Amino acid sequence: MSVLVVGSLALDSIETPFGAVKDAVGGSATYISAAASYFVNPVRVVGVVGGDFPREGLTFLEDRKVDLDGLEVIKEGKTFRWAGRYHYDLNERDTLYTDLNVFEKFDPKIPEKFRKTRNVCLGNIDPVLQRRVLQQMDNPRLVVCDTMNYWINGKRAELIETLKMINVLILNDSEARLLSKEPNLIKAAKVIRGMGPGVVIIKKGEHGALLLTEKMVFSAPAYPMENIFDPTGAGDCFAGGFIGWLARTEDTSEENLKRAVIYGSALASFCVEKFGVEGITDLTYLGIQDRFREFRELSRFDED
Amino acid sequence: MSVLVVGSLALDSIETPFGAVKDAVGGSATYISAAASYFVNPVRVVGVVGGDFPREGLTFLEDRKVDLDGLEVIKEGKTFRWAGRYHYDLNERDTLYTDLNVFEKFDPKIPEKFRKTRNVCLGNIDPVLQRRVLQQMDNPRLVVCDTMNYWINGKRAELIETLKMINVLILNDSEARLLSKEPNLIKAAKVIRGMGPGVVIIKKGEHGALLLTEKMVFSAPAYPMENIFDPTGAGDCFAGGFIGWLARTEDTSEENLKRAVIYGSALASFCVEKFGVEGITDLTYLGIQDRFREFRELSRFDED
Repeated sequence: MSVLVVGSLALDSIETPFGAVKDAVGGSATYISAAASYFVNPVRVVGVVGGDFPREGLTFLEDRKVDLDGLEVIKEGKTFRWAGRYHYDLNERDTLYTDLNVFEKFDPKIPEKFRKTRNVCLGNIDPVLQRRVLQQMDNPRLVVCDTMNYWINGKRAELIETLKMINVLILNDSEARLLSKEPNLIKAAKVIRGMGPGVVIIKKGEHGALLLTEKMVFSAPAYPMENIFDPTGAGDCFAGGFIGWLARTEDTSEENLKRAVIYGSALASFCVEKFGVEGITDLTYLGIQDRFREFRELSRFDED
Repeated sequence: MSVLVVGSLALDSIETPFGAVKDAVGGSATYISAAASYFVNPVRVVGVVGGDFPREGLTFLEDRKVDLDGLEVIKEGKTFRWAGRYHYDLNERDTLYTDLNVFEKFDPKIPEKFRKTRNVCLGNIDPVLQRRVLQQMDNPRLVVCDTMNYWINGKRAELIETLKMINVLILNDSEARLLSKEPNLIKAAKVIRGMGPGVVIIKKGEHGALLLTEKMVFSAPAYPMENIFDPTGAGDCFAGGFIGWLARTEDTSEENLKRAVIYGSALASFCVEKFGVEGITDLTYLGIQDRFREFRELSRFDED
């Protein structure tokens, strides 16, 4: 089953304790669509780049059979750029600069042939744009949405309108607390579910993730990583793996939502092992399934 | 199989956002032995109290069939007192005062009849005293040890000596980082295992716990609690449930260590539901098993 991804395509400059890259191909739509493409195709991207977006960024996605017909290329414009520096333990980062460039006037237009896509993943962009995407879609079965503190603080009312239109919200623990104004994560998820999404996923970095529905709490472990090279894109890969698995299986039962969280976690774990998109460049479906089983071993216990 | 517990018996004054108690019965040995007593008996306590320790504190333990023959009562002395105030989200606390009183000169003497106890739980006390306990024991099968930042910072060399004599170290995530000088918890556990204990358990509060051995990492979920009334004693209940289960089953295989971590987590979850020792006063073994199964549901997922 098909997946539509809307988000940024960017050139990232990243510094970690292990090295630095300048203007590397990145952006939420890039990571989400690449991760989802390991599970299902077609994956369709709607986004915008400038004339300076490197050919290899497009080739990377084309090689993964991502449909780029919804990608707007503004030849005379410059691609969105982000630069960040991670702290020594990689749990925190400082944004060094954000140049919106062509993204500043981005107004997502969904090509006619994309409008019936059954699964939609709204990358972390302005909630007003997220809503405009949904208004152009023809009754999608599943809408997964990412957001961040920038929108929770700056566009709270708009975000709350968008939340009424989605099925699954993915956010991290501090964002969940900020959005719900509730320090307890279980209560926070209830508050957020009351805003619209039936399913809330709270990512906790090195502590794994929580999946919360009306009837269920599922605690997913974190993959035990000794060496994280670059956390950039991990959250997007989580979203891509999550929606990719659900689209592949056409099953949104609670049991399968749990598996989707594990596949999302697996893709995120591959992502952070290398710089930029390198970690999700040459995966195999078998390799992903092996990691799924490692997650199972990590958290499995039996009664005596 | 028998369990020996060495630690503090205290009078705790606790403030949380939900209320306050003054001079309530507490202390690491109290919580550990009560928690362990749901799994096995005899549980034997070695500790010291003043003449002001209330009769009901002793009755509480006697009712749970805890053997108090190793409890020194200094009639003219005052019991160890601790006062703390929890922050609104209960993840942090300030110590308001610590009056060591009779604990200042505590020198644990293991009664002859306790020396062959097979399982030893060293509560969070001075590592010099922990070692003195072990020197009096006759070849215990399993030694579980708790510690805290106070000893890691203040008695590092002594603690490192003690670590050479134990099998399992239980500590929280910030303590693990402090002891190992390594921010990554998986690496931190390796460093700590290199100091002596074959098994390291890292408690992460609302994020669950990690169990690490030479060959295995196990990620235990946290019980999803909406209302934590009082975190005091949770770590001690974890240790008590952990060693209690291992003593009951006489099985230290990796599979059974995992179960012990879940039983420890279960006892800790009961503990924080009420003030002081109230949460672990009237449990049943069946009720504990039900909670074990809830932990299983919380983290269980299958392949499709």
